[in-house]
Amino acid sequence: MSTSIGQYLLQRLHEEGVRHVFGVPGDYILRWYQQLAHSELTQVGTTREDNAAFAADAYARVHGLGALAVTYGVGALSVVNAVAGAAAESSPVVVISGAPGVIEQREHPLLHHRFGPYHFQREIFERLTCYCAVLDDPLLAARQIDRALAAARRYSKPVYLELPRDRVDTVIHLQPECVFDDDGSDPDALAEAVAETVALLAGAERGAVLAGVELHRYRQQDALAALVERLRWPVAATLSGKSVLSEQHPAYLGVYEGAMGAEYARNVIEDADILLLLGSALNDVDLGVFTARLDPRHMIQARNDEVCVRHHRYPNIRLADFLSALIPALQAPQRDWPAHSLPLSAPGFPEPGDAMTVSRLIGRLNDTLPDDMLVVSDTGDCLFASLELRTHPRTGFLASAYYTTMGFAVPAALGAQLGSGLRPLVLVGDGAFQMTGMELSTAAWKGLNPVVIVFDNGGYSTERFILDGPFNDIAPWRLDALADVFGPLYAFTIGDEQAFDAAWQHALAHKDRPTLIAVKLAADDPSSAMRRLGESLGKTVKGG
Amino acid sequence: MSTSIGQYLLQRLHEEGVRHVFGVPGDYILRWYQQLAHSELTQVGTTREDNAAFAADAYARVHGLGALAVTYGVGALSVVNAVAGAAAESSPVVVISGAPGVIEQREHPLLHHRFGPYHFQREIFERLTCYCAVLDDPLLAARQIDRALAAARRYSKPVYLELPRDRVDTVIHLQPECVFDDDGSDPDALAEAVAETVALLAGAERGAVLAGVELHRYRQQDALAALVERLRWPVAATLSGKSVLSEQHPAYLGVYEGAMGAEYARNVIEDADILLLLGSALNDVDLGVFTARLDPRHMIQARNDEVCVRHHRYPNIRLADFLSALIPALQAPQRDWPAHSLPLSAPGFPEPGDAMTVSRLIGRLNDTLPDDMLVVSDTGDCLFASLELRTHPRTGFLASAYYTTMGFAVPAALGAQLGSGLRPLVLVGDGAFQMTGMELSTAAWKGLNPVVIVFDNGGYSTERFILDGPFNDIAPWRLDALADVFGPLYAFTIGDEQAFDAAWQHALAHKDRPTLIAVKLAADDPSSAMRRLGESLGKTVKGG
Repeated sequence: MSTSIGQYLLQRLHEEGVRHVFGVPGDYILRWYQQLAHSELTQVGTTREDNAAFAADAYARVHGLGALAVTYGVGALSVVNAVAGAAAESSPVVVISGAPGVIEQREHPLLHHRFGPYHFQREIFERLTCYCAVLDDPLLAARQIDRALAAARRYSKPVYLELPRDRVDTVIHLQPECVFDDDGSDPDALAEAVAETVALLAGAERGAVLAGVELHRYRQQDALAALVERLRWPVAATLSGKSVLSEQHPAYLGVYEGAMGAEYARNVIEDADILLLLGSALNDVDLGVFTARLDPRHMIQARNDEVCVRHHRYPNIRLADFLSALIPALQAPQRDWPAHSLPLSAPGFPEPGDAMTVSRLIGRLNDTLPDDMLVVSDTGDCLFASLELRTHPRTGFLASAYYTTMGFAVPAALGAQLGSGLRPLVLVGDGAFQMTGMELSTAAWKGLNPVVIVFDNGGYSTERFILDGPFNDIAPWRLDALADVFGPLYAFTIGDEQAFDAAWQHALAHKDRPTLIAVKLAADDPSSAMRRLGESLGKTVKGG
Repeated sequence: MSTSIGQYLLQRLHEEGVRHVFGVPGDYILRWYQQLAHSELTQVGTTREDNAAFAADAYARVHGLGALAVTYGVGALSVVNAVAGAAAESSPVVVISGAPGVIEQREHPLLHHRFGPYHFQREIFERLTCYCAVLDDPLLAARQIDRALAAARRYSKPVYLELPRDRVDTVIHLQPECVFDDDGSDPDALAEAVAETVALLAGAERGAVLAGVELHRYRQQDALAALVERLRWPVAATLSGKSVLSEQHPAYLGVYEGAMGAEYARNVIEDADILLLLGSALNDVDLGVFTARLDPRHMIQARNDEVCVRHHRYPNIRLADFLSALIPALQAPQRDWPAHSLPLSAPGFPEPGDAMTVSRLIGRLNDTLPDDMLVVSDTGDCLFASLELRTHPRTGFLASAYYTTMGFAVPAALGAQLGSGLRPLVLVGDGAFQMTGMELSTAAWKGLNPVVIVFDNGGYSTERFILDGPFNDIAPWRLDALADVFGPLYAFTIGDEQAFDAAWQHALAHKDRPTLIAVKLAADDPSSAMRRLGESLGKTVKGG
């Protein structure tokens, strides 16, 4: 059986469940775009390439695998930041870059979009992805494509495939399918680690679970719920892991983030005599800028390739294998669900005449957020405010929670909605909106209907709390006027609770187009988490 | 004498003539931003980091050196494409990236904005710049800064300096100034190359000059004019070299670009018995997608580090040294100025009721473009159309003419105006405007006044002529409504000649704010150069 390199790539993406490919065309990828246009996959054009990568990242998170396709140089180098974000956030995105033809590269070195030796682009992506290949050889191409997709799944990281334009139609003869070597868990190490863990859990008096992002990425949400059903321990999430357990679950404490998170969750997590940390290598955001007080002597940490008990390590244990071995080894629950604090609410909203504040906004969303919306947060105050937001089960919350790149949310909402079928609620600051917010025009154009709430406070608020100066100001935009620029779009600028509630209720009732709600906030009204973060980072920047 | 690393960097940028630093703040660069805010340099905030890099690139081209400053990871990785463009276009841009502190990097590996080992960022920029350094050592930092600025000047390429945030205030003790080894021209090789060139030029019957981008970058515009005064030969420019000789000069033929350029210029250049090619390694755009017919047996090529006569090479000769030795060695002119074709004009404009076309637009601009405006063109039809535009002398034309990245022009206009003091005329397609055009809000906010003409034809026109499909469509924007989003801004959408002329005359008469003129064009109305390019590229993409 024979096919072409371009067609095989399309076929394999489809087999892996990919239905949408994000990107901007360019002459080195045009021929593959033409194949794509005649395939079962849909090409989704964005205004800029980095936005395509943000969309593919979100699509990967909710759908299992995402893909983007761009031209050489100007296209691929424009997605470097967004792909680095996917790497940092463990999101399996297939980056497909066109390239000059093999023959062209050999004969005509100074082709447009060239910035150095042609292999420099691949060398850059080797630093962002877990597998890179140039599909220039018909004998290798199918194998390279298979390995790329397997690596994206196995490591939940981006991969890079470069397709020279004179190889798109090159015929390949498929060989018998070859099973990849399975590098699964070491069974003896697994048994020993599970036995030690069971014993430690049985002896715990104040056990707690901290749930991280890999539970999302390796689809272990049900395993977590089953584990919690046995343990009946309180569960907090890291910010990246937020929503991995239903935020309505009786065991759920909220987000743990050292001194930045809620006091109650902090006390439970830090006072635990056994803390079971699942699917996370804690980073500075998770640790509340190193205000966390976690003692490894009381911790069992299971990540995708390793279990650590106190200070010793069991290598070669997959997270999924560990959970599926651990759960049946635990006794049936001996206790009731733990009591814990309730989510933030906003009683009496709207209060006539009251200006909007961040905490009232979050409280109102907690009281009214429908179950069939997922939340996509950008970086900045909205991210820290969303610590206190209770969202939809499962992949109900998406953010660049560790890499913290601004401009993620509006383009990510494209991928989130196409990948999940759920309506996105986007929380975004005004500075981040100026970076990528015009991508909302694509949502309107494609018949999607996100609700975008802009925290409109005249600048880079997070940085104001670290170190302020004129560089934190941004040009004023009248955001509701965007409805005259593109559409269809409902757009509102609101300053008080009554106006917000009217706009929000309008958005919930009108699903035929996107809604943009610019919420005017005072520059000195941060979320409580951001206030704590700003103070803490400020000490570092000022030379602490 | 002692200072700090951050202060020394500011001082040396100022000594090199830099007065504006473009960028977006972030916590790893905030402390240096604070020093910058108290310095003699002005920080210019942009909506996104890549736009800061485009602005710095344009500033470097018109001013001699440009600078941008961003945070680690999310900031620096966002400028990769724009800095690659500066490398491809030989523009000396100083990229300053903040970074986690040296101590933080050592103790806390999982800091936010991290995407891999911390040195990966430097390794990426090593592929885009001619000098990279991490300013982590007070003994080396001053020397590294000096070398970076010298390298940017010497090679007219970007350089990269990474400043860990705990090193901004680190005291350095300045050593006696150290003269860099001069690696100037080899005097014997220079003498021999000049003598051979003089003899060949004297024997030429149909001599011609083709002037390239390095004449701009190494400030050899006066030398070119003096050379032409002696030779009285016709002169064409490459697209990147456009405007290096005044486009009103009697010897000027226009842009040579193989079959894509004007027929008259093509005949003169390709029929020359001696072609003097100055400051350019010809790329595929210059060669009209390889439709050029240039014979090395008739060519003398002088680039920055080498003179090639026919098929032999003289290494180690700088372009400036070659020109200053060659010019006095030539005899006084023996002939009159050559006759050549006149620039395109638009007689009888506006013709009542006539819809706008690309050729009439360019003709009208040729008839009315003031001497004190410089043209900044984006990539696409507007770039090819501008082949036929006659601009202001010297750096009167800026474009991403070889790297051809879209979205260059609107942000570049910021740097062009701040660096030159001249009012920019921006030509940009609607697709490119959707990528970065909102940066016009910064121009309005900062009191600048570019005139932006959008070629509004509903998609990626260049690609339509190569290979069309639904992927070349873009979401419709009503561009004049942007005046309600930000400002102050004059904005017009026009479709016919009378309306265009009214808007254009309004823009020329009202210099108090930017003007945006969206020109509605038929999708099947390309410039003649683009039509030829599209046909030629189409053959390649379709498998020619």
